[in-house]
Amino acid sequence: MNETSTASWPHKDLLDVSQLSVAETLHLFDTASYFQEINTRPVKKVPTLKGKSVVLFFAEPSTRTKTSFDMAGKRLSADTFSLGGSSSSLVKGESLKDTALTLQAMNPDAIVIRHSSSGAAQFLAERLDCSIVNAGDGWHAHPTQALLDAFTLREQWGEFRGKTLTILGDIAHSRVARSNVNLLTKLGVNVRLCAPRTLLPVGVQTWPVEVFSDLHESVAGADAVMCLRLQLERQAAGLLPDLREYSRRFCLTPDAMTRAKKNAKVLHPGPMNRGVEISSVLADADGSLILNQVASGVAVRMAILYLHLMRPERSGDKQ
Amino acid sequence: MNETSTASWPHKDLLDVSQLSVAETLHLFDTASYFQEINTRPVKKVPTLKGKSVVLFFAEPSTRTKTSFDMAGKRLSADTFSLGGSSSSLVKGESLKDTALTLQAMNPDAIVIRHSSSGAAQFLAERLDCSIVNAGDGWHAHPTQALLDAFTLREQWGEFRGKTLTILGDIAHSRVARSNVNLLTKLGVNVRLCAPRTLLPVGVQTWPVEVFSDLHESVAGADAVMCLRLQLERQAAGLLPDLREYSRRFCLTPDAMTRAKKNAKVLHPGPMNRGVEISSVLADADGSLILNQVASGVAVRMAILYLHLMRPERSGDKQ
Amino acid sequence: MNETSTASWPHKDLLDVSQLSVAETLHLFDTASYFQEINTRPVKKVPTLKGKSVVLFFAEPSTRTKTSFDMAGKRLSADTFSLGGSSSSLVKGESLKDTALTLQAMNPDAIVIRHSSSGAAQFLAERLDCSIVNAGDGWHAHPTQALLDAFTLREQWGEFRGKTLTILGDIAHSRVARSNVNLLTKLGVNVRLCAPRTLLPVGVQTWPVEVFSDLHESVAGADAVMCLRLQLERQAAGLLPDLREYSRRFCLTPDAMTRAKKNAKVLHPGPMNRGVEISSVLADADGSLILNQVASGVAVRMAILYLHLMRPERSGDKQ
Repeated sequence: MNETSTASWPHKDLLDVSQLSVAETLHLFDTASYFQEINTRPVKKVPTLKGKSVVLFFAEPSTRTKTSFDMAGKRLSADTFSLGGSSSSLVKGESLKDTALTLQAMNPDAIVIRHSSSGAAQFLAERLDCSIVNAGDGWHAHPTQALLDAFTLREQWGEFRGKTLTILGDIAHSRVARSNVNLLTKLGVNVRLCAPRTLLPVGVQTWPVEVFSDLHESVAGADAVMCLRLQLERQAAGLLPDLREYSRRFCLTPDAMTRAKKNAKVLHPGPMNRGVEISSVLADADGSLILNQVASGVAVRMAILYLHLMRPERSGDKQ
Repeated sequence: MNETSTASWPHKDLLDVSQLSVAETLHLFDTASYFQEINTRPVKKVPTLKGKSVVLFFAEPSTRTKTSFDMAGKRLSADTFSLGGSSSSLVKGESLKDTALTLQAMNPDAIVIRHSSSGAAQFLAERLDCSIVNAGDGWHAHPTQALLDAFTLREQWGEFRGKTLTILGDIAHSRVARSNVNLLTKLGVNVRLCAPRTLLPVGVQTWPVEVFSDLHESVAGADAVMCLRLQLERQAAGLLPDLREYSRRFCLTPDAMTRAKKNAKVLHPGPMNRGVEISSVLADADGSLILNQVASGVAVRMAILYLHLMRPERSGDKQ
Repeated sequence: MNETSTASWPHKDLLDVSQLSVAETLHLFDTASYFQEINTRPVKKVPTLKGKSVVLFFAEPSTRTKTSFDMAGKRLSADTFSLGGSSSSLVKGESLKDTALTLQAMNPDAIVIRHSSSGAAQFLAERLDCSIVNAGDGWHAHPTQALLDAFTLREQWGEFRGKTLTILGDIAHSRVARSNVNLLTKLGVNVRLCAPRTLLPVGVQTWPVEVFSDLHESVAGADAVMCLRLQLERQAAGLLPDLREYSRRFCLTPDAMTRAKKNAKVLHPGPMNRGVEISSVLADADGSLILNQVASGVAVRMAILYLHLMRPERSGDKQ
């Protein structure tokens, strides 16, 4: 398995895409391509991580991401352990630190963590000697989503340089947007953001992106458009005056897409509010990569688990 | 494994028993008998479905049926993935169609679905290329329950033709009753129904059954009686004037069973309301097949997963 | 695997530590030591229990203990099945007896049960032919916790005889305390209890322990102190006049520990209320065995599953 060598993987943890060099990112994608192929075989399983324990610690619910990691782990023959959720006594009765130390004491090889606090994954990574994989922390980062998005685009585009991608929607509260901007600009993509002013993050002027407030302008000439899920509870918080007004201006429609390049692609991290941030027709059209993203998710997470758990330096981590 | 050949299994999905010919049903039972024996070995596991992914998607809670499928999958060495329940973001944030397409994109080999909407399983089967197994949809069908019931009866009776079975209780709202009537009449069993008028389904006169409103008459000469679980919330809906009155008239008692054949059997799909639809004494008596039904459930579901996931045409389903 | 012979293991079930002789306990510890070592290997898995089914039936939530058993089972290659919790229809709709018989009919090899009723595990053990492991029943017993506590102490002490351990906190409502007193006194440890009068159990004068109401006196000369978790809901019940007053008198502090032996150890079954029953400094200090307890938990539970499921007499249990 030459192309999936772990000899050079220097990271104990995956906290954010900012830690990855371009070369490391592309190496991870090559590894994911290998697993992508395995996922379509009749026997979708390799013995690589047999005897490894992967804890799926989801303090925020996310069936979609958790199932994707669960499949990734099991298809590599790891044992997976799900915990978290509101019913978890680990979550209720303890500080995050005590929960983390308790999990660590059970000798897992990796903890995949989804948490509502920005920095939760890093907090664990500094204290534990097992690998920590950030599956989304607060508004901060969602590196595995960004990696699967970029991997999905590479499958279509071949390469990144010179391509233009528009990210559309609630940028301010989106860890998906943050990680995608970070990763895609590094890979050479021209990234545009489009959102109402109230849903743009503070300090966006310093980001290496173009900012638009008009949907049609933001999409003009784009190679792909990524819609973000609108958290409908934002409206209660007074950030959206009116949902119908929001959709009229920012819902991605076939009409808007006529401004994009021919064969431009549409992405969405799911779950979708059809008719709110993306028109139903586009979600199901030929240019939609939404289901490709889901399929890529399993392969990219297999690559992440593989690279982090099989690196030779690993044996030295434990005392 | 001659008797468990999949060469002739023509079905991608198991949606209802009506799709199965008598020969297919008997072939499924023979396969289940083989697995029934494996379930009593010290090592209750065969490698048959290693590398297959089975998603257990239970939008309605059902620990009993889900655990049975989970055991069936794991004893065949498949990987199983549980999702659903009120805490599932997949269920909350998406239409059934989007949830289904998302699951499909992760490349499972089968999705076992329990859903409150009649037709949910068929809806998935028409859209997905993996196998769909209906684990109960609304009031419509519960084919795996009917198959395990019939399998359990065959273990006792040897053959079906000429036997008489009474189904007792809330027929109107019971997918168990619908699927059992469908399957057992096709296998040659004389089926009787007994229920208060308000709990008989519309159009029952067209069913190939005898209908009774008197418990003792309905049981007279029967080879077996199947009690249904009374959903106690029906009372709130005004369909039951009084629970005590209901039990006085329709609870299966030892006294009523004296009218049945000697050695007549008693079935119940569980969980039981002892003293409401079945007397506690009968549930624990020698003639009770209630625990046999549970044991058969694992074996029959192993057979179902085996036949659907190992059929040779399967490779052609995927594009 | 000479040291982990099951030839002499005479017990179908683990209900309480009182059933174990000293020799059996030490044999279990030797077995656990063997698995403790396996848990630190790169491949943390042995095929010993392949094809065995272990049901984790937790009618009371306990992520910590359930995950520990789940890891123990999977590292022995058993299949594990989680059920219970408030959403479980098994729990809602049925008596414990019917739930148990239903589980049994699925042919598991062991049922690990956590239940709010004292005696629930024994109730199952008398009715089922699979192994029952008590993972905590009401205020009655928590044998696996006591075994992992004693195992953790043996790793430090080498032997038990002549050592002194103080158990501190809500003894009255603690199954952990009951099982620890039972086991440690049998192993030769001098056990002291320290609690406010309202949190001492009725009849404590007949226990083979010394009882204290002053923290500093109870700790004087001790080799180890075990803090119990204070169930904060006890306050609502009127058993604690004031939490601050409780902590002032009964929270284990570095100051109190100066009265104990040099290098005295601190234990806590978790999850901790830092600053209530144990000072945060002590929890993280060198003498803290709290994380050792968690690590021991997996190994001890592997030993328990191994010894109960591999004993040669087992084949004779089933009819």
